[in-house]
Amino acid sequence: MANSKYEYVRNFERDENLLPNTWIVVRIDGRGFHKLSNYYNFSKPNDTRALNLMNLAATQVVTSIPELVVAYGVSDEYSFVFHKSTTLFERRSAKLVSTVVSLFTAAYVVLWNSAFVDQGQSENEGAELPRLSLTMLPTFDGRAVCYPSWENLRDYLSWRQVDCHINNLYNTTFWALVQQGNMSHTAAEEHLKGTVASDKNEILWTRFGINYNNEPEMFRKGSVVYREYALEASPGDDGEGILECETGVENPMSKTQMEKMRKARQKAKVVTKHVDIIKDEFWIQRPWIRGGRPGRLLGDGDSTETKGKTRNLD
Amino acid sequence: MANSKYEYVRNFERDENLLPNTWIVVRIDGRGFHKLSNYYNFSKPNDTRALNLMNLAATQVVTSIPELVVAYGVSDEYSFVFHKSTTLFERRSAKLVSTVVSLFTAAYVVLWNSAFVDQGQSENEGAELPRLSLTMLPTFDGRAVCYPSWENLRDYLSWRQVDCHINNLYNTTFWALVQQGNMSHTAAEEHLKGTVASDKNEILWTRFGINYNNEPEMFRKGSVVYREYALEASPGDDGEGILECETGVENPMSKTQMEKMRKARQKAKVVTKHVDIIKDEFWIQRPWIRGGRPGRLLGDGDSTETKGKTRNLD
Amino acid sequence: MANSKYEYVRNFERDENLLPNTWIVVRIDGRGFHKLSNYYNFSKPNDTRALNLMNLAATQVVTSIPELVVAYGVSDEYSFVFHKSTTLFERRSAKLVSTVVSLFTAAYVVLWNSAFVDQGQSENEGAELPRLSLTMLPTFDGRAVCYPSWENLRDYLSWRQVDCHINNLYNTTFWALVQQGNMSHTAAEEHLKGTVASDKNEILWTRFGINYNNEPEMFRKGSVVYREYALEASPGDDGEGILECETGVENPMSKTQMEKMRKARQKAKVVTKHVDIIKDEFWIQRPWIRGGRPGRLLGDGDSTETKGKTRNLD
Amino acid sequence: MANSKYEYVRNFERDENLLPNTWIVVRIDGRGFHKLSNYYNFSKPNDTRALNLMNLAATQVVTSIPELVVAYGVSDEYSFVFHKSTTLFERRSAKLVSTVVSLFTAAYVVLWNSAFVDQGQSENEGAELPRLSLTMLPTFDGRAVCYPSWENLRDYLSWRQVDCHINNLYNTTFWALVQQGNMSHTAAEEHLKGTVASDKNEILWTRFGINYNNEPEMFRKGSVVYREYALEASPGDDGEGILECETGVENPMSKTQMEKMRKARQKAKVVTKHVDIIKDEFWIQRPWIRGGRPGRLLGDGDSTETKGKTRNLD
Repeated sequence: MANSKYEYVRNFERDENLLPNTWIVVRIDGRGFHKLSNYYNFSKPNDTRALNLMNLAATQVVTSIPELVVAYGVSDEYSFVFHKSTTLFERRSAKLVSTVVSLFTAAYVVLWNSAFVDQGQSENEGAELPRLSLTMLPTFDGRAVCYPSWENLRDYLSWRQVDCHINNLYNTTFWALVQQGNMSHTAAEEHLKGTVASDKNEILWTRFGINYNNEPEMFRKGSVVYREYALEASPGDDGEGILECETGVENPMSKTQMEKMRKARQKAKVVTKHVDIIKDEFWIQRPWIRGGRPGRLLGDGDSTETKGKTRNLD
Repeated sequence: MANSKYEYVRNFERDENLLPNTWIVVRIDGRGFHKLSNYYNFSKPNDTRALNLMNLAATQVVTSIPELVVAYGVSDEYSFVFHKSTTLFERRSAKLVSTVVSLFTAAYVVLWNSAFVDQGQSENEGAELPRLSLTMLPTFDGRAVCYPSWENLRDYLSWRQVDCHINNLYNTTFWALVQQGNMSHTAAEEHLKGTVASDKNEILWTRFGINYNNEPEMFRKGSVVYREYALEASPGDDGEGILECETGVENPMSKTQMEKMRKARQKAKVVTKHVDIIKDEFWIQRPWIRGGRPGRLLGDGDSTETKGKTRNLD
Repeated sequence: MANSKYEYVRNFERDENLLPNTWIVVRIDGRGFHKLSNYYNFSKPNDTRALNLMNLAATQVVTSIPELVVAYGVSDEYSFVFHKSTTLFERRSAKLVSTVVSLFTAAYVVLWNSAFVDQGQSENEGAELPRLSLTMLPTFDGRAVCYPSWENLRDYLSWRQVDCHINNLYNTTFWALVQQGNMSHTAAEEHLKGTVASDKNEILWTRFGINYNNEPEMFRKGSVVYREYALEASPGDDGEGILECETGVENPMSKTQMEKMRKARQKAKVVTKHVDIIKDEFWIQRPWIRGGRPGRLLGDGDSTETKGKTRNLD
Repeated sequence: MANSKYEYVRNFERDENLLPNTWIVVRIDGRGFHKLSNYYNFSKPNDTRALNLMNLAATQVVTSIPELVVAYGVSDEYSFVFHKSTTLFERRSAKLVSTVVSLFTAAYVVLWNSAFVDQGQSENEGAELPRLSLTMLPTFDGRAVCYPSWENLRDYLSWRQVDCHINNLYNTTFWALVQQGNMSHTAAEEHLKGTVASDKNEILWTRFGINYNNEPEMFRKGSVVYREYALEASPGDDGEGILECETGVENPMSKTQMEKMRKARQKAKVVTKHVDIIKDEFWIQRPWIRGGRPGRLLGDGDSTETKGKTRNLD
């Protein structure tokens, strides 16, 4: 039974190969996580276990795909950034998106019940997450977007982090009014209508004694996941030079070079930080993210000092 | 901290809305399943537990998304067919693909260790699947393809089923030579070079006493997943009329009608069959697949006879 | 000076190959024709010379591209229909659009001053068009749209013809009020606000003695351009059979067959008619348009009768 | 006759909005110009009248579309560059391509017989071009390509200019062998097989006394069309600063600003030069091309000196 009679159907397949020399962001979003977070009794406004789980799944994705240079997560969304020079899957959009989404979903589900989830959780959230039910599977949709310049990419990530801040301040105040102020959801919503940031800070402090700036950084700043190397820039450096270095498609690497770099990246530790990524400092100290080339591994030579620096950062 | 400064980055987002009035097939494929099937000791050439797991995950997907009218799976791939009239997610390609991939992955991982996997397994495969490891997560990539006509869609599905047949006959013979004939992989490959279907049937029968036609239908024909209703066509009917009825975009349904149909579909049982889908019979008896409108539920009125019919089919 | 250093820039080129087995319509629109028609003193509401020029340019396009099965024009727009089986330029959208637009523009400009423009013009428009000025070049933009089914294509063409009718009835009444009724543009516009078709017919008849149905068919129905063959269907035929015959991609023609058909089509006369294309009759009598295969040339055998039929049609 | 029944067909229209913040190049190519140049007896290897005509048509296009910052032409092709910040036609690909193609075609055809074509022609080509025939219309196809960085755009233009050089050296030698050396086309082709640039220069010099470097610059370097302003950089300047200044989408201009700039550009003279655009010099002295903002008009203040500079350049 030859198959040639039907093979013409392959002509209907269409690939979208994303424009070369652009930064590719695959952003995934939890589907129906409002409902899901109620079903599994997530803590409000933030569930440390659930956020840790997101971060662990993202770490798994970044570890599995060395072409990813950084990822940023907040709430039930995560943005994964492919270096602009990547040629993974010939930059086919559907392949990039579906691979990231599938990897993230698989890791999220496998890790759901794992011991890892408990790491780093705050004291009042000692309980494990309830077992997953087939009728309420955690799933994520995704999309790919191209950003032509480094400035566009930085602005995209800043946009997400500002969004994190705005939403978290709102949610923290809303749930304080509901949980500690015994307001109904509607009343709390009404109460916050038209308020600006300083109003919410005031409400938190005067009514509930909460200093918003003391809230956990993971809640206020979201999570950055990336490969850590020895930090490079000295305090006096304005980083201009570093921020401008680029790996152009003009000088594409050979296959051997790329494979070598891929392996070098795989040796680096993938870390999760809750730090400001809007200002330049984060990026100046980690030029390998923009450059797309592996940095010096931690533990080489002056590692002690470097590690100290890292710790001071967040 | 207003976010307006950065919001311009939304202008970089691009959606691909798939052409209306075309059948959308989302096909998913296991990533690196050759390696994965070795890692988890899948039986060769077919692992009943693994195939059942694929079918259960597909059932979960079809059940969750009423807009899917049929799905067909073989080996580590599955094709999910959206009716040509669907407007789900405004037919955005990335959203359709990522949702199907994520749902399938989540179901596959959750069901991996579940008791359901053991159902229907052949006697010599009593063992459960080994526990999933984070270092070898089962993941799937996916893509969407549009087929403008019913004939194109039928030909696509026929293409997949012919492929199933060709591959399975080859694999069955190859592994008989290796496992029972003690040939090396290379020797078996060499032995089969240039053989046609009848040669392979001959080898199986004369050397190993295997009648290929007695092999399980799931191996030979793959798996069709769809909503079952009371079969409709009588034996004498050539089905022409039924196969030609179409729901055009010309007469789009109202939102209320669509919601009503969606609910009707949700009541139907999603079944898995291992039957011929190349010939017309399967489609003539199940006009609701092409028509996209729910049929008469099983159990209404003449259900006994209908159910009997169903059973005779496969 | 080898060019290899720069050749990487070819990787940025992207092609959109339009989905196979769909009808491709390239619609072109005059750019700024409101201004242009004032500049060159076109008659209002319709300029016979300008419409004839559009039709002649369209005829040139259809004649040059045998893959076009029909074209429909109204005012300063024209829709060119490629048969769904076409593989011209590998169905690349930019190539199809730019070729049609360029051919149309070149023909339009070359024919502008030609004697051909005067053919068929009504008596009161004897003057030639004024000479073209570089500062007011007639130009057209274009786009390609795919229609998956014959019904979709028919509905597209019906949409354009209904639009022609609605606009022409409005314009005829508007300019009668202005030119014969001495109303200002604003007053005429105000006068017509909220009127339906019968109101406008009434105004035309009672105030200006114009029977709209006696207006030239080119104004009321637009223009259809296509290859004419011997008409095929007999009066009693409901055309069902003919309208359903299709050339599927399932049975693609060989290159030789396609070349043969291409040549056969080139022998046929390209005609321009001003007839109803919403009802089935036009299409039933010209099955070669849907079928995409050349019909029997006029002048073969029973040509007299056939030609008579054609004449009766419009 | 309401049109609502058919309006659903608009849902089939799809727009491709090109990625923001990327340079858009619309490249047009003559269709079948090999045949056309024989038909109209173009001189070989270069026809000055035909090249002038291309340049005049391109000038018309650049003049009509202020969003174009530069264009480069060679033989029967022309590349038109939209500034990366352009939002013309919402960056819709089909609209940009078809508008450029239609404008170019219209101008080419109108100018064909005009007196302008004779300007600048070499002495031995005094004859006018033959009249255009409907059976051999000059037409052009086109496509749009996005280049994310200035370097990518520069490399694209360098690629075209190197191509111009390679082809022109080959053609000059080939036609010398044919026209002056009385070789057949095949013999000349054979003779040049495997030769490098220096071989061809040698053949031209020793056999025909032709110093290739004395060939007209239009033949050797192609043509650049752009708005000329007062040149800006001094000889000692390395231009780094200028070449790096960019108008980002990060700080999009207001509508008023854009309209103001559009008008400023319209005042500038569009010029045609035959100069090197591979080296930096051309770009350093004309920073307004990359910057996308109008420069200082010629004739303001120190215009004499500036104009002198311009003249020295080419």
